[in-house]
Amino acid sequence: MPTIVVDVMPKAELLDPQGKAVTGALSRLGVEDFSAVRIGKRFELSVEGEVTDAVLAKAREVADDILSNSVIEDVVNIEVVA
Amino acid sequence: MPTIVVDVMPKAELLDPQGKAVTGALSRLGVEDFSAVRIGKRFELSVEGEVTDAVLAKAREVADDILSNSVIEDVVNIEVVA
Repeated sequence: MPTIVVDVMPKAELLDPQGKAVTGALSRLGVEDFSAVRIGKRFELSVEGEVTDAVLAKAREVADDILSNSVIEDVVNIEVVA
Repeated sequence: MPTIVVDVMPKAELLDPQGKAVTGALSRLGVEDFSAVRIGKRFELSVEGEVTDAVLAKAREVADDILSNSVIEDVVNIEVVA
């Protein structure tokens, strides 16, 4: 069954307290390879049948209007996986 | 600055209440193109400098040990983006 993946991240200019907490935890644990961590959401939308242009357009609409809050989040990626 | 993206999803055999709620909401809103929605997490790890094999291996280790709970979640993807 094809799946449409929608990735949503907090806007770059916003603090991301979850990500900040993980960044601090990694540092306390002695992991120094990563200067920052940001945490967003990954939605997997299952599609019965084929992913037509109409289905993909609907996914874009749903991503912008329902899955993300455009005040604080950006839809950074929409892709179809097998 | 290169970024390592780590995608974590709830295990397939587990109920995903957030995803179920969104699936129900879409259906109530008249969106019938998607038979199921599952919601996971997307981590973006910023790397200062180059992504060497060692840094990537550390990212894998952190993904398995710290960013995900292997009892209920799977790391489904680790990739480097520009």
